[in-house]
Amino acid sequence: MAQKPNIPKGTRDFSPAEIAKRNYIFDTVRKHFKRFGYQPIETPSFENSSTLMGKYGEEGDRLIFKILESGDYISKIDENLIESTIPIYIALNSIFKDVFYFVVDKIKNEDQRFLTLDEIGAIVGSDELHLEINLILDKWSFFLSPDENLSKLFKDEFNSQKHKFLESLAFFIFGEGVDFERNISDNSFIRYVITNGERGLISSWAKKLSKEINKKVKIKPEKSKEISISISEKALRYDLTVPFARYVVMHQNELTFPFKRYQIQPVWRADRPQKGRFREFYQCDADVVGNDSLLQEVELVQLYDAVFTDLGLEGATIKLNNRKILSGIAELIGAKDQLIQFTVALDKLDKIGEEGVIKEMLGHGIPEAAIEKLKPLFALDGDSMVQLETLATMLQDSEEGTKGVEELRFILEHSLALGLQNSTLALDVTLARGLNYYTGAIFEVSAPEGVKMGSIGGGGRYDDLTGIFGLKNVSGVGISFGLDRIYLVLEELGLFPESVSESLQVLCINFGDAEALASMKLIKQLREAGVACELYPSHAKMNKQMKYANARQVPFVVMIGDQELAAQQFVVKEMGTGTQSTYDLNDIKPFLEAIR
Amino acid sequence: MAQKPNIPKGTRDFSPAEIAKRNYIFDTVRKHFKRFGYQPIETPSFENSSTLMGKYGEEGDRLIFKILESGDYISKIDENLIESTIPIYIALNSIFKDVFYFVVDKIKNEDQRFLTLDEIGAIVGSDELHLEINLILDKWSFFLSPDENLSKLFKDEFNSQKHKFLESLAFFIFGEGVDFERNISDNSFIRYVITNGERGLISSWAKKLSKEINKKVKIKPEKSKEISISISEKALRYDLTVPFARYVVMHQNELTFPFKRYQIQPVWRADRPQKGRFREFYQCDADVVGNDSLLQEVELVQLYDAVFTDLGLEGATIKLNNRKILSGIAELIGAKDQLIQFTVALDKLDKIGEEGVIKEMLGHGIPEAAIEKLKPLFALDGDSMVQLETLATMLQDSEEGTKGVEELRFILEHSLALGLQNSTLALDVTLARGLNYYTGAIFEVSAPEGVKMGSIGGGGRYDDLTGIFGLKNVSGVGISFGLDRIYLVLEELGLFPESVSESLQVLCINFGDAEALASMKLIKQLREAGVACELYPSHAKMNKQMKYANARQVPFVVMIGDQELAAQQFVVKEMGTGTQSTYDLNDIKPFLEAIR
Repeated sequence: MAQKPNIPKGTRDFSPAEIAKRNYIFDTVRKHFKRFGYQPIETPSFENSSTLMGKYGEEGDRLIFKILESGDYISKIDENLIESTIPIYIALNSIFKDVFYFVVDKIKNEDQRFLTLDEIGAIVGSDELHLEINLILDKWSFFLSPDENLSKLFKDEFNSQKHKFLESLAFFIFGEGVDFERNISDNSFIRYVITNGERGLISSWAKKLSKEINKKVKIKPEKSKEISISISEKALRYDLTVPFARYVVMHQNELTFPFKRYQIQPVWRADRPQKGRFREFYQCDADVVGNDSLLQEVELVQLYDAVFTDLGLEGATIKLNNRKILSGIAELIGAKDQLIQFTVALDKLDKIGEEGVIKEMLGHGIPEAAIEKLKPLFALDGDSMVQLETLATMLQDSEEGTKGVEELRFILEHSLALGLQNSTLALDVTLARGLNYYTGAIFEVSAPEGVKMGSIGGGGRYDDLTGIFGLKNVSGVGISFGLDRIYLVLEELGLFPESVSESLQVLCINFGDAEALASMKLIKQLREAGVACELYPSHAKMNKQMKYANARQVPFVVMIGDQELAAQQFVVKEMGTGTQSTYDLNDIKPFLEAIR
Repeated sequence: MAQKPNIPKGTRDFSPAEIAKRNYIFDTVRKHFKRFGYQPIETPSFENSSTLMGKYGEEGDRLIFKILESGDYISKIDENLIESTIPIYIALNSIFKDVFYFVVDKIKNEDQRFLTLDEIGAIVGSDELHLEINLILDKWSFFLSPDENLSKLFKDEFNSQKHKFLESLAFFIFGEGVDFERNISDNSFIRYVITNGERGLISSWAKKLSKEINKKVKIKPEKSKEISISISEKALRYDLTVPFARYVVMHQNELTFPFKRYQIQPVWRADRPQKGRFREFYQCDADVVGNDSLLQEVELVQLYDAVFTDLGLEGATIKLNNRKILSGIAELIGAKDQLIQFTVALDKLDKIGEEGVIKEMLGHGIPEAAIEKLKPLFALDGDSMVQLETLATMLQDSEEGTKGVEELRFILEHSLALGLQNSTLALDVTLARGLNYYTGAIFEVSAPEGVKMGSIGGGGRYDDLTGIFGLKNVSGVGISFGLDRIYLVLEELGLFPESVSESLQVLCINFGDAEALASMKLIKQLREAGVACELYPSHAKMNKQMKYANARQVPFVVMIGDQELAAQQFVVKEMGTGTQSTYDLNDIKPFLEAIR
């Protein structure tokens, strides 16, 4: 049976129509990245695990796809990281112990006699006995394998075979019904048990063994990270920022700063897949490092606006905040260590109203007096510059907060002076995206009102991007475009140009060998002139060929039958209108002009 | 200490200059794929392991990168696949056994008395004893860890600490010098040993334990594949052909056949990296499935020629063979099952000459009489059509061989009729590339003579591409472009256009706040007109800004100082010539015309 083909959950195949639309977005973004002076780089799909691990927090580490080492990677696992259990071994051992205590009890309670040396030898297990048991294990391990394919093959037999194995093992240990190569010596403990007629124990020991066999080797949960590192030295890219930081540090001597780079590559996350969340997706990032001028923030706002304008997307809101303002507010209310709880609460203003936010803040232990100082925040409204002045007054006693206000003012004022074509720039003091790493400006872009979609882009400034890799004091600022969401927004608003999905301009119908060759000669000329065209490869029925033409949505079908060939002509059918025109095979210019 | 950043061996970072050149090739290939009516698809970077495994032979399976399952993947390993050893456990057990036999010997040879029950309990190991030993193991496992980082941290202490541990364990087991929480009962076997003064054994047991501890958990070598499957359900794409076959079968109801697709994506192979061989590299494939017309082979030859012509690459040789001809020859000499050895030998004709080839064939047991029939092959020379007629005569008694000759004739004749612009089409009967799966035409492209480089492309027809996934009788034919090698060839021949590496057309010098704003307004207009330009982000020294301009190889530098701003002008310095011109800030058209 052939396999029913499928792809891993959270991944996608892209059809030609989807690729055309995705490339339309990529090409547009790329065009503006270039116009803004950003240069492309690409980094490997997998990095050393040590480059990625520990850079995205506990949760991030868990979501990084690790690549298995090839070869004998299991030997790289420190056995201390594994629960000390190879179950069959333990099960046997534990049975031997049971056997021992059983005998001890027997002796204690019944005849109080000591065991002979041979009897003790049998209890602890002679080498011979171990050898025999290993032979049985090898013989039967096939049926114990949890390998799904094997299980399926033997679906019906599996359980009964397993049972048979346990029976065999018990019979072997206890000496009856044994048809294996070698019998154990008469003078053994097993004989002792058998001759003393203690058969009831056999089944309980077999049961215990069966239970143990179904257990697996387990990682100590707290050690799974260490194990992953030991058997996986590489991991798939989780985002483009950490590889970029690594790139800058590694190539610092080849680069001229400020270094403006863009990067459009896939990233992978072992997230639980759900609607709109994939395990493989593209990121489109533009960042500049090595200069802390705020003009770069101003330019990034222009970049967003230029791309959205080119895509025909009107009314996107570029939301702007500054980490220093958030810090200033936290300082003001004496809740520096509660900055995250504070911004999370504030962010809900729209949903739960002023009262709800205050209640939540009180819940986090932010004192009433402090919340009183925040009151102006709840009333922030209207023009961004007006809002900014409210913030300026509120934060006048905080050095950091005042710095944040100044930075924001610079970006807002310059953006006003340059103007935006299609987007709106709006201060949003609740914006706390990426609080962990951004140190200055924070950006987030919302789709136009009415389109239900999360953010379609975001970014910010991080004062020490490359510090983790040893290059200190290199400031960076960058933004990202959310390809998948922008795709959905353009789809919903019908903004993809029709021409995007046109993959073939001309199809030549195949009327047989000689005609086909003439068509191929025509096609060769058309292609040299830049026209996407092809010949239907076989002399199929006209019906079938036209069906293909329709499926490919070809605007022009060319026909060279025997009459046309004789007259050195070709007939063009315009599929939209059905009108037909005839051209000279020896002069294609009129046709080229007609289809442009 | 920050990490010294690096990338996994066999992978590459691409700089802006390299990306520009790579994209130049990609864009050219893509342009012609489109003109030839091929449509793009993309498939996920990782597929289910079952989709890939077993499709590339034993060696291929080994070279597939496997992705580790997240979570408790170790529990998915069947313990039967691992050598039954958790060494510490075994080591202890084996020591207990030694202790036992020592005692038995002692008793036998010295006083012949039986052990007391308590003594036996101590030999086999009471639960209390096990508990204590586990406590010690936990306490000291840190120093036993083979984790390299830990080892490094304690480089100096490691060995002595390990020794201390073994001593402690021995002391604990044997009851002297114990300062642990709990002492074992006076009535134990251990006391027995101690009181009997047998201390010499301690060190030998400790030595044995030490040896065992250094062992690791091992996979049974023949089981490593099964283990990989159980802890890794996904694997990175190894080529584009198998995912394409999977795509066609999975989406067969959405596709119209013939389906012409192109695909340009990276693939990954766990090959030993060496010069020119990478673990991550791009493949560029064009294939058509669902039609067996040979016109498609003709078209693929045209496609190669069109791409090479556009890249300015003259003199590439498109070598052509047919699997059926190879089969016919093998049939002729009665060596059907030795086809591979036969073609491998024939392929060496250039290197080892006719005699060498004959010697090698004789070595493979091909009879002399058969080799006599092959003589015409050694003399094949000159025009492909002439060579073909020699083959036709030679293979006239083989039905399959004759079919192969006819197919080749069709492709050669049609290609002659259409003509090639820059490449040469040549019959090469030694070409056996991909013998395992190709069933008809076989292509391979050599770089122009004089450039030392392997093949820069290849392909062929496979009669049953999708059969492995359950869709029978779907013929496919396709070709591939070797990006990395084409890159090296273009580099060697100096064929990359200079404009490829130009990433920035205009740089505006930053003279301070007001001037910078005026520059940004100019830049905004230039970008809207499609010019790649930027402002140096900070008011740095002129020297530094010009150094940046040089590093970016900018052809035009724009200066708006205070005087220019006052006069509403901007000065343009042409970097190549050093000439300066002045333009009106309110009319950029003349400047746009000047730089185009």
